[in-house]
Amino acid sequence: MAVLGASGYTGAELLRLLAGHPAAEVTAVGAGRAAGRPVGALYPHLTRFAEIPVEELAPEAVAGRAEAALLALPHEESARVAPALLEAGVRVVDLSGAFRLPAEAYPEWYGFEHPAPAWVEKAVYGLPELFRERVAGADLVSNPGCYPTAVLLALAPLVESGLVEPAGVVVDAKSGISGAGKAPSDSTHFATADGSVRPYGAGGTHRHTPEMEGVLGSAAGTPASVTFVPHLVPAVRGIVATCYARPAPGIGASELRSALAEAYAGSPFVRVLPEGALPDSKRTVGSNAVELAATLDPRTGTAIVAAALDNLGKGAAGQAIQNLNLMHGVPETAGLEAPAVYP
Amino acid sequence: MAVLGASGYTGAELLRLLAGHPAAEVTAVGAGRAAGRPVGALYPHLTRFAEIPVEELAPEAVAGRAEAALLALPHEESARVAPALLEAGVRVVDLSGAFRLPAEAYPEWYGFEHPAPAWVEKAVYGLPELFRERVAGADLVSNPGCYPTAVLLALAPLVESGLVEPAGVVVDAKSGISGAGKAPSDSTHFATADGSVRPYGAGGTHRHTPEMEGVLGSAAGTPASVTFVPHLVPAVRGIVATCYARPAPGIGASELRSALAEAYAGSPFVRVLPEGALPDSKRTVGSNAVELAATLDPRTGTAIVAAALDNLGKGAAGQAIQNLNLMHGVPETAGLEAPAVYP
Amino acid sequence: MAVLGASGYTGAELLRLLAGHPAAEVTAVGAGRAAGRPVGALYPHLTRFAEIPVEELAPEAVAGRAEAALLALPHEESARVAPALLEAGVRVVDLSGAFRLPAEAYPEWYGFEHPAPAWVEKAVYGLPELFRERVAGADLVSNPGCYPTAVLLALAPLVESGLVEPAGVVVDAKSGISGAGKAPSDSTHFATADGSVRPYGAGGTHRHTPEMEGVLGSAAGTPASVTFVPHLVPAVRGIVATCYARPAPGIGASELRSALAEAYAGSPFVRVLPEGALPDSKRTVGSNAVELAATLDPRTGTAIVAAALDNLGKGAAGQAIQNLNLMHGVPETAGLEAPAVYP
Amino acid sequence: MAVLGASGYTGAELLRLLAGHPAAEVTAVGAGRAAGRPVGALYPHLTRFAEIPVEELAPEAVAGRAEAALLALPHEESARVAPALLEAGVRVVDLSGAFRLPAEAYPEWYGFEHPAPAWVEKAVYGLPELFRERVAGADLVSNPGCYPTAVLLALAPLVESGLVEPAGVVVDAKSGISGAGKAPSDSTHFATADGSVRPYGAGGTHRHTPEMEGVLGSAAGTPASVTFVPHLVPAVRGIVATCYARPAPGIGASELRSALAEAYAGSPFVRVLPEGALPDSKRTVGSNAVELAATLDPRTGTAIVAAALDNLGKGAAGQAIQNLNLMHGVPETAGLEAPAVYP
Repeated sequence: MAVLGASGYTGAELLRLLAGHPAAEVTAVGAGRAAGRPVGALYPHLTRFAEIPVEELAPEAVAGRAEAALLALPHEESARVAPALLEAGVRVVDLSGAFRLPAEAYPEWYGFEHPAPAWVEKAVYGLPELFRERVAGADLVSNPGCYPTAVLLALAPLVESGLVEPAGVVVDAKSGISGAGKAPSDSTHFATADGSVRPYGAGGTHRHTPEMEGVLGSAAGTPASVTFVPHLVPAVRGIVATCYARPAPGIGASELRSALAEAYAGSPFVRVLPEGALPDSKRTVGSNAVELAATLDPRTGTAIVAAALDNLGKGAAGQAIQNLNLMHGVPETAGLEAPAVYP
Repeated sequence: MAVLGASGYTGAELLRLLAGHPAAEVTAVGAGRAAGRPVGALYPHLTRFAEIPVEELAPEAVAGRAEAALLALPHEESARVAPALLEAGVRVVDLSGAFRLPAEAYPEWYGFEHPAPAWVEKAVYGLPELFRERVAGADLVSNPGCYPTAVLLALAPLVESGLVEPAGVVVDAKSGISGAGKAPSDSTHFATADGSVRPYGAGGTHRHTPEMEGVLGSAAGTPASVTFVPHLVPAVRGIVATCYARPAPGIGASELRSALAEAYAGSPFVRVLPEGALPDSKRTVGSNAVELAATLDPRTGTAIVAAALDNLGKGAAGQAIQNLNLMHGVPETAGLEAPAVYP
Repeated sequence: MAVLGASGYTGAELLRLLAGHPAAEVTAVGAGRAAGRPVGALYPHLTRFAEIPVEELAPEAVAGRAEAALLALPHEESARVAPALLEAGVRVVDLSGAFRLPAEAYPEWYGFEHPAPAWVEKAVYGLPELFRERVAGADLVSNPGCYPTAVLLALAPLVESGLVEPAGVVVDAKSGISGAGKAPSDSTHFATADGSVRPYGAGGTHRHTPEMEGVLGSAAGTPASVTFVPHLVPAVRGIVATCYARPAPGIGASELRSALAEAYAGSPFVRVLPEGALPDSKRTVGSNAVELAATLDPRTGTAIVAAALDNLGKGAAGQAIQNLNLMHGVPETAGLEAPAVYP
Repeated sequence: MAVLGASGYTGAELLRLLAGHPAAEVTAVGAGRAAGRPVGALYPHLTRFAEIPVEELAPEAVAGRAEAALLALPHEESARVAPALLEAGVRVVDLSGAFRLPAEAYPEWYGFEHPAPAWVEKAVYGLPELFRERVAGADLVSNPGCYPTAVLLALAPLVESGLVEPAGVVVDAKSGISGAGKAPSDSTHFATADGSVRPYGAGGTHRHTPEMEGVLGSAAGTPASVTFVPHLVPAVRGIVATCYARPAPGIGASELRSALAEAYAGSPFVRVLPEGALPDSKRTVGSNAVELAATLDPRTGTAIVAAALDNLGKGAAGQAIQNLNLMHGVPETAGLEAPAVYP
């Protein structure tokens, strides 16, 4: 098992989870910036990997040392590295956005021409609760974005079964600051972020928008439209996505809850909350759990489905390990059973 | 000037602001629970009032000592105390919900039969930016709720001018923990709230919903409907209300921004942000400022108007002082000029 | 395995850790206040235990269902319950203060006459890094306080070897708010605690003081004296204890570091940091790890030893599981291998 | 009034306080990095200064536009700019460390040879509570460091009167993250700092150490020695300095409290807390207040004096304004009367 891009938050979380994985063995750790030091110098808390060197690893070097690779690289770098690994026989779970959209969408949404459109077509969208079987047989799994994971788990079964309409959806999401990445900036400075609630990327500009619309549209069989506004809130980890949609005529809150419960009956990480309960991102921190609650405003007839997860867990590294497990035929929950660290 | 209900967060904020007010003199401080100690024992930081006693004050006792009273009492208590004060000739700014809705709405939304429906009719809704003149002549001003202040400043001019529709509005709001009040509980415990993002009161049950719909409907001249979901986020102060609405045909973001800028040209506390900028609750903390930004998702055609304010400032105590100033003919900004404490 | 006192933070953390324990089986969960509901109602994140009932459990009821019990009860309740369990043949790890001091010290420090002084004498002080063998053979292990765990791990090997003096020690400790317990109060309200740094219990009044002095004095062979001032800081978990002591003549920082490294060579949870590195409580959150750093101010000749740990982890529940492991002859690290959740 | 170095946290706080100052007029705002934009672009919350341009200002340009200047510049830049301003007739309050130590100490503690040792000699150390009269007559006031302000207010009257010994002092200080400055870094990233308690600069290396020792030594008439360990805690603003010292024989806590109360009887910003009360940094946030509490551990005989202040307020910008007021003969409290924003 190789982990490439170990110096960012997602890479660190991959290593943290692999430290407790009963079946996966870490044989190569790559990071450009941090190369030359052992993992222990980067992450003193990961004592199990203290002596493993962090290297600047070319794809060919990885191929001789690992059968699978987890990629926590920048989008454009992943678009080049993943194909090279795959062609050398290494199976890949890619955590970037490089394989999430149709190839032709990359200039608009990611600002680059995709160098490997054929691999984009072969990539399986790694949301196991929706596409478990496809993931199991894939060589290249594209790990979903943190926001789409929350939104699709909340809405995909409902639009698929026709209980809510895929058009006119509003998604208001709140994310902890680790979602903004590890690079220090004015925006992520503690003195800026603490005590601050801030929308950003309003106006349909966030890259996760087409990802949500694509999967919801496929599930529904008709185009979906999502007005998506993310916000930064002063927490390290955690996303709450509150989704507003029009229900089909006659559909009430209990039908929504039942449909979610049924859809996720075999999904160990999804907790569909009972009537009256609402998600709390804190109950997912450090874990691969997702909390979902569906209700309906009887005054306005709007369906409200809220999802909470850890953006570094189920929203990134946890989901990648889950995909990896499925690809290798080990139990889906291997290495992911730790409950949230609460409080 | 009497302040009744000084032991809660809103009462404390009233005293803090009055400590810097050039014209108001505090002559009586009431609080049931905390009576018998001076203000200095309750709030060591309010050195100006250190020696003023906190008393258990009956309305008749207030009447002899103050011409006006600020009431930060529980709703039902305010519904009884305010009329008694008014009948004794004391002008009142009431910060509770006791005079915000039509009298007949109280059993449903507040759980009690209103004891003074005639005063409910006379009460002026104290949102100065919308009703400045009415406030100036009022004896009883009903200070708006924190969420409605944000939402109405964001939307009222737009629905009034027909730029957005009053029906089908979605309001997703995020509030700091002080909005949950001073009473300690599991929900407000630091270990529960820190790192936690939580919706609450989803499903049209929050008392601020009819308040928003009432004022928006009046502004529009047709009924408004608002799907309102508040959330608690780990900050002490601050609200961001993100409002989603359908624009009238042909209306773009610049028309929305212009309409807001025009509506608030004479309103010193409202900052309408330029294109590309979005509100940040932190830039309002400790102040009476409101930040507004309007944009439009060109992909879905949804108007997005976001408002940020300090729930204890413009959302409660600051606005009450602003109302008081207008009632007494002193400059609207008296005692409220301090900028936010940032960072 | 029984867990008594499951409704507090320490009880919750015991359950969280036991959920991932490979050898321990939870057969009884007790909590007075929360009895009658399943664990899942109390802690939705502990899905493994979702269906286990929370019961009001008398000691005799426990005896038939568990060979060992972890007690997270109030001090005085533990002083009664633990002996009853022991006499019924149940081995006990007690997380309260009920068995940490000599019996005659309880009136002064805990405000009650100890009901079972004979058991106090038999109790083994459960700091495995210092008393591993005694713990292994004990029937009653008294789990140390959170502050003493940090301070004793920092200083005990140094006073024992004569490298620093046991008298005239200053301990300045900073604790997250979960250390103040789960009971809601003004002091633990988010709006009070966020942004606040506060000493408390200054002046030698904290109950952990005699616990530190007792163990340090025993290690040194001469009486120890500790000036101890704890502080609350706005974090949920984490303690940093910064200890100031006089070194023996000629002793430098490298001797201090070497002595600590040697003392903890066989202790998997203790990380003695290299020169130039200092502890960070965040790197221990959710884990059983302790970080130690020793240095010396060359200008004043004062030795500075800082320790960081998670007050709910190594400072309470993690250490209790570690003791349990030793008592049962399973590997010390069983169920405790998860690294800190960082960031 | 010119403010130079407006782009950092201290510069921003100077502007915030000057926005409410009744006598000072801001005529020039300098900042290298941010030059070319108006203050409103940098700080949207400072609406009073929205249109004032931020300029790259040479000292000679300042001289024509301001009689006094507040300098929030890097140390070495201040060491050059302040003399140029002074020689052009501009009175200066310098907030850097450039004039706090004897000139010969700069190579060791600040890493540069001081370019203006004659001005170092003329500089008055701007701690008004200790040196009020000297400040009033000064042309160059050197504003103390944030930590020394807290420590000297806590200890200087006690060592001066012989109540505690100036040697063997331990100062354990906790600071909010804004104290680390505005430059984004790994250390100040929200995800790093939130939930983290970290000592730094242990071992006598912090630049504020000789500043404390110098003033304490002068007050005592004999050399002082201070073991100083600062810590970063997850708050934006606020310092608590807990000072441990040996009292003179026979001195108890009440003598310490009385001495402090007497020393600060005429100092409006210092609150000496009564027996049983301890400082809380939160009660100083946004204000120029200092809270002091003295006690004594009767078991160990150690005096404990704790001080709390806002590192950007009394620890930097507030104190600078206070010095400015004294230099200009306006009331010491002008522009500084706002109480802390609490909660």
